[in-house]
Amino acid sequence: MGENVGASARAMANFGLSDMAIVNPRDGWPNVKAADTAGKALPILDRAVITQTVSEAVAECQFVLATTARERAMQLPVLDARAAVREMAARIRSGQRCAVLYGAERTGLENEEIMLANAVVTIPVSPDYPSLNLSHAVSVLCYEWMMAQPLPMGEVGEQRETGEGKSSLVSNIPHLKFADANFDLSHRERFTATRAELEGLFTQLESALDGVNFWNVPEKKALMWRNIRASLLRADLSAQEVATWRGIVRALSK
Amino acid sequence: MGENVGASARAMANFGLSDMAIVNPRDGWPNVKAADTAGKALPILDRAVITQTVSEAVAECQFVLATTARERAMQLPVLDARAAVREMAARIRSGQRCAVLYGAERTGLENEEIMLANAVVTIPVSPDYPSLNLSHAVSVLCYEWMMAQPLPMGEVGEQRETGEGKSSLVSNIPHLKFADANFDLSHRERFTATRAELEGLFTQLESALDGVNFWNVPEKKALMWRNIRASLLRADLSAQEVATWRGIVRALSK
Repeated sequence: MGENVGASARAMANFGLSDMAIVNPRDGWPNVKAADTAGKALPILDRAVITQTVSEAVAECQFVLATTARERAMQLPVLDARAAVREMAARIRSGQRCAVLYGAERTGLENEEIMLANAVVTIPVSPDYPSLNLSHAVSVLCYEWMMAQPLPMGEVGEQRETGEGKSSLVSNIPHLKFADANFDLSHRERFTATRAELEGLFTQLESALDGVNFWNVPEKKALMWRNIRASLLRADLSAQEVATWRGIVRALSK
Repeated sequence: MGENVGASARAMANFGLSDMAIVNPRDGWPNVKAADTAGKALPILDRAVITQTVSEAVAECQFVLATTARERAMQLPVLDARAAVREMAARIRSGQRCAVLYGAERTGLENEEIMLANAVVTIPVSPDYPSLNLSHAVSVLCYEWMMAQPLPMGEVGEQRETGEGKSSLVSNIPHLKFADANFDLSHRERFTATRAELEGLFTQLESALDGVNFWNVPEKKALMWRNIRASLLRADLSAQEVATWRGIVRALSK
């Protein structure tokens, strides 16, 4: 389906890939629906290589992965998507050309086509509905490819190293931006408040609460106050935020 | 677009997820194009919750992630998709309900909608074409979710253990075993407040601050208020602590 080919081109462009080959397109080529769906990824379709057989399409490649759910039948190594892109990245660094094969959505790859591959790549799916849309499968592989590109911490936006090789799915990706991979808040560039600043807020808040007889039962104050402090401590406030909260306490107590 | 909603439902079903909420559907609901695209995932659309606002859709959730490329502006923690699903898995194991918000394809999420989230989740994309198709973004998140479920080698297809939790994107996955995440869960043994409880506190605090003309410069209110909310969101308050803070605001404003 043209829409699937176009959507796949879009996913490739989103994740920095550019080289597509299309084998024996069912509805001829070029395809208006593919172009409509590709959006800004139209150049990938314009440059796509059209061949009559998979064999021609991968002729210049050293490493070929086949996406299939029939991995058990083929006696080929089976990699998940994450391991597959690592393997490709290593091979591309050493100068190899790599390709990933996708079958037509309803029929998948023929057995003879899978036999052209070095390994099978699988995507884990629910047994209740295992049939992935073509462009969704492409999205997952291309996303994993993007995730596998190392970017040193603190160098967001800088140029990455370029792999020497080139593959039929994979190409040069300049100026990538990656999100922080954990809950580390350092990217917020806030200046975390000092303990002294925090204690200033705590003292002011405690005094304000004393002033309005907040602690109905005096014996409970110690525990309640510890919990209030703890909730503010967990917020990991910046110096600016401490000042804001002091302003809030001051304004509300007036 | 109905096609995007249907394709997203299909991706959810492929990766074992089932609970969808749709906010204010542009073309009404039910939607024929969505149903056509969903294929065997039609039951997800049939059971989808329709609400008028994002706030209603996430009211019962304790942890909400917003997918957006505008992460820098919001003072929220930023997670990549892989870290985000680990965080969700850990929270779901401890009994929390979690949701992932996706915006409309062209416009994305509004700032006020992003402010309903605890954290932002990003997917690395090429700067040359950063706009992901909605169902492709859903595919990536759902795929990461599936990948985070550990399944011992050689046990493909066998029964998994069942997670106790439930979330609005993630649910009813029979035989699911959740990943061991690296996050310290000790402080989450508490009963984390729902979004509705938090919004109650926010509404009361904003109203109290309005009442004392806290915002010296009205134009600055939006940014200041966003930062105040963000600092309380980071505190990951329990329901009891939300009640305590409401008591503080009430007592101080008297």
